[in-house]
Amino acid sequence: MPKVDVCFTPELLHLYQLEGRIVVVVDILRATSTIVTALQHGAKSVIPVEKLEVCKAYKEKGYIIAAERDGVTADGFDLGNSPFSYMDKAIMDKTIALTTTNGTLAIEKSKSADQIIIGAFINKKAVAEYLLEQKKDVLVVCAGWKGKFNLEDTLFAGALATYLKDDFILENDSVLASMWLHKQTSVNIKQYLLQSSHVQRLNNLNIQDDFEFCLQKNIYPNVPILNENGELVNKLVSV
Amino acid sequence: MPKVDVCFTPELLHLYQLEGRIVVVVDILRATSTIVTALQHGAKSVIPVEKLEVCKAYKEKGYIIAAERDGVTADGFDLGNSPFSYMDKAIMDKTIALTTTNGTLAIEKSKSADQIIIGAFINKKAVAEYLLEQKKDVLVVCAGWKGKFNLEDTLFAGALATYLKDDFILENDSVLASMWLHKQTSVNIKQYLLQSSHVQRLNNLNIQDDFEFCLQKNIYPNVPILNENGELVNKLVSV
Repeated sequence: MPKVDVCFTPELLHLYQLEGRIVVVVDILRATSTIVTALQHGAKSVIPVEKLEVCKAYKEKGYIIAAERDGVTADGFDLGNSPFSYMDKAIMDKTIALTTTNGTLAIEKSKSADQIIIGAFINKKAVAEYLLEQKKDVLVVCAGWKGKFNLEDTLFAGALATYLKDDFILENDSVLASMWLHKQTSVNIKQYLLQSSHVQRLNNLNIQDDFEFCLQKNIYPNVPILNENGELVNKLVSV
Repeated sequence: MPKVDVCFTPELLHLYQLEGRIVVVVDILRATSTIVTALQHGAKSVIPVEKLEVCKAYKEKGYIIAAERDGVTADGFDLGNSPFSYMDKAIMDKTIALTTTNGTLAIEKSKSADQIIIGAFINKKAVAEYLLEQKKDVLVVCAGWKGKFNLEDTLFAGALATYLKDDFILENDSVLASMWLHKQTSVNIKQYLLQSSHVQRLNNLNIQDDFEFCLQKNIYPNVPILNENGELVNKLVSV
């Protein structure tokens, strides 16, 4: 049986063997929820970029440039990190260069994996079905918050591992902890997450609508996959 | 109010400000349980040492030398890492130099803290009462397993934070997760921990008695504290 494990933050990635694995990058609030949304709403691709200045340079190529730092849109960029900004026909068939505080860094650091896909609650079932079909070892990489553990990414990891548990070996304690936390909180995930100072800090930036949106389950059928050009493109999965 | 936070592994310590804090180092299976036991049973002090060869050199000074690597006693040392080996009058008034896979590294990496104390389930109440009395910011540093998250240290962190929660600000998501995991598992902690591949690996080394012993709560009243000479010495706390 293939194995599934969870890495709580990109700061711990050096402890994991990525070769031979599919990495699922997750940054629920909001990078990976936004990437899934953008591709589902017709964007041609999303280029994840680590640095602000590198991202800005994509403007000259005619790309849409998007950036978030500390929860807000960075100066001089077309878009920020709210999924609602990407439900717009202006992005149809466009390529978007995106940099965020945590999510795009997690993608960058995972590049030695066999495959990188993008997970969020909004496409959880599609991601899970894709992984069941692939039958390869999986590592869920939580983007965290500035290197530290965060709850919302971990709860997604737990939900995904729970879906996979009959067909995968649960590898280390982090996957068990994620599943137990998911089990405990799934009936009222919002109430639990609102106790988090990190979530409160985000909600102080008036992203309550984003918060509600990003916690919806299985509303989109697409699985973004990083291709050989370093672009995230859509893969439709029948669920 | 002072703050309490949890660092899941020494690999994440660089993200935390240790100055001005009391660090509680925890390595339930078994380094910190063993240190508490040794000092409670009459050892004069325990010197935590990171490297095997450095630890071995203490023999010439007339110290007892103790070492564990990957769960077993290292060759050429007087003692390993089982708390039962330290319930012996041979250690009375002796200094013990100790190196372990995870626990002594966690102590070493925490040395910029204002104070380092040693926590385990067996002295949990004593540690908690000491921290309530000190009223300083606290960071619980879980030793983990070779840099990765582990459950038993996290469940202790959650139990301790739950004890402190009315008098401390809960700082980041890791402290909430620890408390929720503790709440879920506290009725039958052994049954939960036996699902952990890490615990199964340890139990395959015939440490089931150690496992049972280390999960007992509040059987000892002492709080080991690192003094200015780098030695852990006993502090009795009235609980």
